[in-house]
Amino acid sequence: MMQTESEKPLRIAQVAPLWARVPPVDYGGTELRVFWLTQELVKRGHDVTLFASGDSQTFARVKSVYPRALLDAMGHGYALNYAHYANASFAEAIRAGASFDLIHCHSELEHTPFAILSSVPVIYSLRTALSVDDHWLLRRYTEIVFVAMSHSQIRKVPEDRRKEIPVIHNGCNFEDYVFSPGPGRYLAFLGRMGRNKNPLGAIAVARASEMPIVLAGQPQDRSEQAYFDKEIRPLIDGDRVRYIGPVGRAHKTAFLRDAAALLFPIQWEEPFGLVMIEAMAVGTPVLASRRGSVPEVVDPGITGFIGDSLEEMAALVPEALKLDRCRVREHARERFSHTRMVDEYVRLYRSVVGPR
Amino acid sequence: MMQTESEKPLRIAQVAPLWARVPPVDYGGTELRVFWLTQELVKRGHDVTLFASGDSQTFARVKSVYPRALLDAMGHGYALNYAHYANASFAEAIRAGASFDLIHCHSELEHTPFAILSSVPVIYSLRTALSVDDHWLLRRYTEIVFVAMSHSQIRKVPEDRRKEIPVIHNGCNFEDYVFSPGPGRYLAFLGRMGRNKNPLGAIAVARASEMPIVLAGQPQDRSEQAYFDKEIRPLIDGDRVRYIGPVGRAHKTAFLRDAAALLFPIQWEEPFGLVMIEAMAVGTPVLASRRGSVPEVVDPGITGFIGDSLEEMAALVPEALKLDRCRVREHARERFSHTRMVDEYVRLYRSVVGPR
Repeated sequence: MMQTESEKPLRIAQVAPLWARVPPVDYGGTELRVFWLTQELVKRGHDVTLFASGDSQTFARVKSVYPRALLDAMGHGYALNYAHYANASFAEAIRAGASFDLIHCHSELEHTPFAILSSVPVIYSLRTALSVDDHWLLRRYTEIVFVAMSHSQIRKVPEDRRKEIPVIHNGCNFEDYVFSPGPGRYLAFLGRMGRNKNPLGAIAVARASEMPIVLAGQPQDRSEQAYFDKEIRPLIDGDRVRYIGPVGRAHKTAFLRDAAALLFPIQWEEPFGLVMIEAMAVGTPVLASRRGSVPEVVDPGITGFIGDSLEEMAALVPEALKLDRCRVREHARERFSHTRMVDEYVRLYRSVVGPR
Repeated sequence: MMQTESEKPLRIAQVAPLWARVPPVDYGGTELRVFWLTQELVKRGHDVTLFASGDSQTFARVKSVYPRALLDAMGHGYALNYAHYANASFAEAIRAGASFDLIHCHSELEHTPFAILSSVPVIYSLRTALSVDDHWLLRRYTEIVFVAMSHSQIRKVPEDRRKEIPVIHNGCNFEDYVFSPGPGRYLAFLGRMGRNKNPLGAIAVARASEMPIVLAGQPQDRSEQAYFDKEIRPLIDGDRVRYIGPVGRAHKTAFLRDAAALLFPIQWEEPFGLVMIEAMAVGTPVLASRRGSVPEVVDPGITGFIGDSLEEMAALVPEALKLDRCRVREHARERFSHTRMVDEYVRLYRSVVGPR
């Protein structure tokens, strides 16, 4: 059968952050997403060049301005200022533009203005909650194709611009997450120990539903440390309320598998919350507050429940424990597998590149 | 008379930082240098486009991504992250490259990698002491014309690269500094209240030479505040050791004019130290330690003296007071006027642009 125009392989540059290598050894959510995307694109026959730290290991051709992950280099005093290297990496991707059909950028939003100098289309995946400065960029540079990770992330963008911004939900490689039939022994909380993530609310929900809770994660700055010391630490008793500190990638999956449900009582407009998908991927249902992307991610009665208050969440715990964990995983896989994410990105790539 | 090739006016883009407007109301050393350079270039018939904050006022055409100085906007919460706007300004200058013979950039070194995307030569004036990251950039991008403000600034750059980097000493517009015949009533210290600038050493020199001292400036961060509180504040007696806090541009000149000499006992490799020129411009000699650019700026026996220790500096105070203040100013004007600086930049511009 003849290859149709739309099946022609694409020449794609992926620009990753340089904090961690691709794939990351431990932390590095964006680097992990770039890894899954890159591997799958190469498997499908596309020609991918990955601009990333020099120690990255993928199926793609790696182009690097620095031999190792910057967080690592900085820890050893070999580099001081991240922006020098991240800017160099993006500049060199744009300079090599003639070799690509498009550039897909996952790095810092602040250097995105330079995309206006590219000879090929630049697609930029928004990574975080948007600041006033980010909104300013979105309005000023309509020639850049921004992609949101949720409708919630761009809810404050004026409608005429917002309707131009495609939403592609994050995806996970479900092969990396081993299913557990459960039933799970505790409620789990996983995230930064800060007011936004609300570990205090998670403890309240666990107490009200008479379930033990295990908390993982750590305070990330001075103000979160103060919050943790004052509000959370006094409640840890090593029995009904346990705290296991930060968990690396390997331990994270085991921690989620052994849980009866994940509590996600966020108190801010979180733009995605990948941990919800990771929990579902091992079969663990999610009990979350109605904020940020939660209504786009959790399907009530199938993969978890959504509450409007801590009381409502506590009342929903028994319901969540009754959910079919196998169905939790399969439903989530349908909506949030990395192959679905790659399908959507390839569709976007082709619409941006146009017929060639 | 026919205009020769070398006299043809140039089309120049000047890219300023966006922290302060051009000229700055108060602080903003780089913005001030860009102002003097821009005004003089326009006076000489060149076509100058200035990328700067929208409230800038010069003879040049101003192009701006933001209507006001960023420090001001940030103070009012209208902007959070400087890099968004500074990157946009530089990107838009490069995009408009076809309208210019060259781009002269005075902004952040970290976004300089994007100069490799410019269709016209980019000249970048180094502003600060160079970090390991800055050295990395200098080595990686030999197509960018970096300009040093002193030989001291680039002393650690490997020789093969260093010899490609022109040195153009800073200049002041001497018309903005009114001469004072003296003799001056006190020794002056002006600068950040930190260990590098060494106000403690200045006080020691004043005491040893039995002169009163007046200190101006303030601590700029937590560690300088601790230094100031512990080492400097207890020595302030309001009589022999006075402290007047930070001084704005208008007060600065008066403060320097009324001084018998400026003490500049720095303990680090300061790349320029414009305050030395400003003191000389009002006729005040400079007594400095042999560090950084000092040997390139102070001409012993004419515009001041250089000491290898605080004791030596103290012993030189009577000599400094005997210097002819009028000659101090005239000698400094010859070496450090902004017109001399502009002469050198125009020569560099023409060598970079080549015959057209």
